[in-house]
Amino acid sequence: MKQNLPSKQGVMKPGRVEEITSTANPRIKAIKALAMKKNRDSENLFVCEGLKLATDALDAGWSIKTLLYSKNAAGDDGLRGRIEALSTKARARGSDILITSDKVLTALTRRDNPQAVVAVVEQKLASPDEIQCDPGTTWIALDRVRDPGNLGTIIRTCDALGAQGVILVGQTTDPFALETVRATMGSLFHTHLFKMDEESFIELAQSWRKTGGQLVGTHLNGAVDHRSIDYSQAPQILLMGNEQQGLTDDLAATCTHLALISMNGRADSLNLSVATGIMLFEAQRHKLATIGAGA
Amino acid sequence: MKQNLPSKQGVMKPGRVEEITSTANPRIKAIKALAMKKNRDSENLFVCEGLKLATDALDAGWSIKTLLYSKNAAGDDGLRGRIEALSTKARARGSDILITSDKVLTALTRRDNPQAVVAVVEQKLASPDEIQCDPGTTWIALDRVRDPGNLGTIIRTCDALGAQGVILVGQTTDPFALETVRATMGSLFHTHLFKMDEESFIELAQSWRKTGGQLVGTHLNGAVDHRSIDYSQAPQILLMGNEQQGLTDDLAATCTHLALISMNGRADSLNLSVATGIMLFEAQRHKLATIGAGA
Repeated sequence: MKQNLPSKQGVMKPGRVEEITSTANPRIKAIKALAMKKNRDSENLFVCEGLKLATDALDAGWSIKTLLYSKNAAGDDGLRGRIEALSTKARARGSDILITSDKVLTALTRRDNPQAVVAVVEQKLASPDEIQCDPGTTWIALDRVRDPGNLGTIIRTCDALGAQGVILVGQTTDPFALETVRATMGSLFHTHLFKMDEESFIELAQSWRKTGGQLVGTHLNGAVDHRSIDYSQAPQILLMGNEQQGLTDDLAATCTHLALISMNGRADSLNLSVATGIMLFEAQRHKLATIGAGA
Repeated sequence: MKQNLPSKQGVMKPGRVEEITSTANPRIKAIKALAMKKNRDSENLFVCEGLKLATDALDAGWSIKTLLYSKNAAGDDGLRGRIEALSTKARARGSDILITSDKVLTALTRRDNPQAVVAVVEQKLASPDEIQCDPGTTWIALDRVRDPGNLGTIIRTCDALGAQGVILVGQTTDPFALETVRATMGSLFHTHLFKMDEESFIELAQSWRKTGGQLVGTHLNGAVDHRSIDYSQAPQILLMGNEQQGLTDDLAATCTHLALISMNGRADSLNLSVATGIMLFEAQRHKLATIGAGA
């Protein structure tokens, strides 16, 4: 990562450009190894696919360590210009550029029709100090979220409905896993993501309550309809439980409200990302502009 | 499937019981082949995993052709009674029972920790004649839904929020794929599922409109806030577009309302299953009982 540090002249040293077509190349192998969490953690890196996501990452100020693109795609008129623009910009900020074959990209992403661009990006989590109990803010906290697709979809939903950030509590699925990153559709790069253990979250929750914030947990034994809560005044955290087990007792005990989404069908629960979407829409309802004349 | 037909005495012939521990067994191979859509289609069968789902299927009147369970699980006190009860009931209704090894179950479901029970179930779609334009009913229609997880999650949401059924329009992902069935969490067995091409749906939509039904499509150019529509009177179909392309022009043209979900973040769209959840909750809002005293 040396090339990302300002040089003595205060100018970023541009990355190197290399052509690699063998899946056995050590650099490709090292990127492939990022499919495993322990390697992502030790390298503090992750992989994201596609021109859109790589562009989102760079535009949002994330650091791209390596940008790979397909030789074939670079020959495609529609894509070429955009890939070259991204590649020039990334290189100027210190990214290495690897021009590869489709075979290599297929190996990296385990897809039959790989995207023409793959980026290796530095992981970034926000500092818990940034969680400010400001009026009118809404935050999402997830207790031990397990499914990568759910986590990615929730990050996307938060970004679309204007939540301030997502707090991961306890042992959770990795936000930097390929499947999670895919499901965020680029929202990962626009979302403040926090990670803490249950104890730290309970501490946060206690000071949050003291300063007048509300903490709404969804709970099967929730006594309150989620629609009946006033979301328009206090800052709030919406706390969602684990897919199988819901909230821990300690987390439930720290909430100001335990809420339930009213249902009238046979299934007794909603998918976590759908439930989060319904909760967050309700909490933001008063803030969301009414569209059109029909309103 | 002969064992599912009533015998001359009008009594169902019980299924056979067999012990199979080899993944090379032809019956196991045939079940494994159901991982491919063309085999599911030609056999009119699909696979579902787990004691809960198999029980849901049987209780909801779906026909289990073959029930497999793990020898090991049957030795587990907690599970044994429930598996035996299910197995007895299924066999009485004509299901063959295969007692297998965990290795076989792992091979069938491609999971490291397979469920103790796997059922091979006959596919079932409802007849379009059952789509009745009755007051107060809400139906979901999906234009070319592509992602198995989205489809399964939407079926679960419909079951939880009391929609009448799900209409699959055009070329869609297979509702009987393992991943879809998993995501329904058993709601597949309680949901009326319809399948038709776009032309047939447009015909249905036209007669639906004539009899006073409304057809609400979500559309990026939707001029109406989804909250501004009166869902309390007319029967309605909520029509959701394909993940990438949204609704086709012909489908959009057949809607009584084109609606948009208001957003205020950076992401420009929601995941399809989250959008469907938010739309359906709004449409059912007036019908959903208010929980608790806080309301």
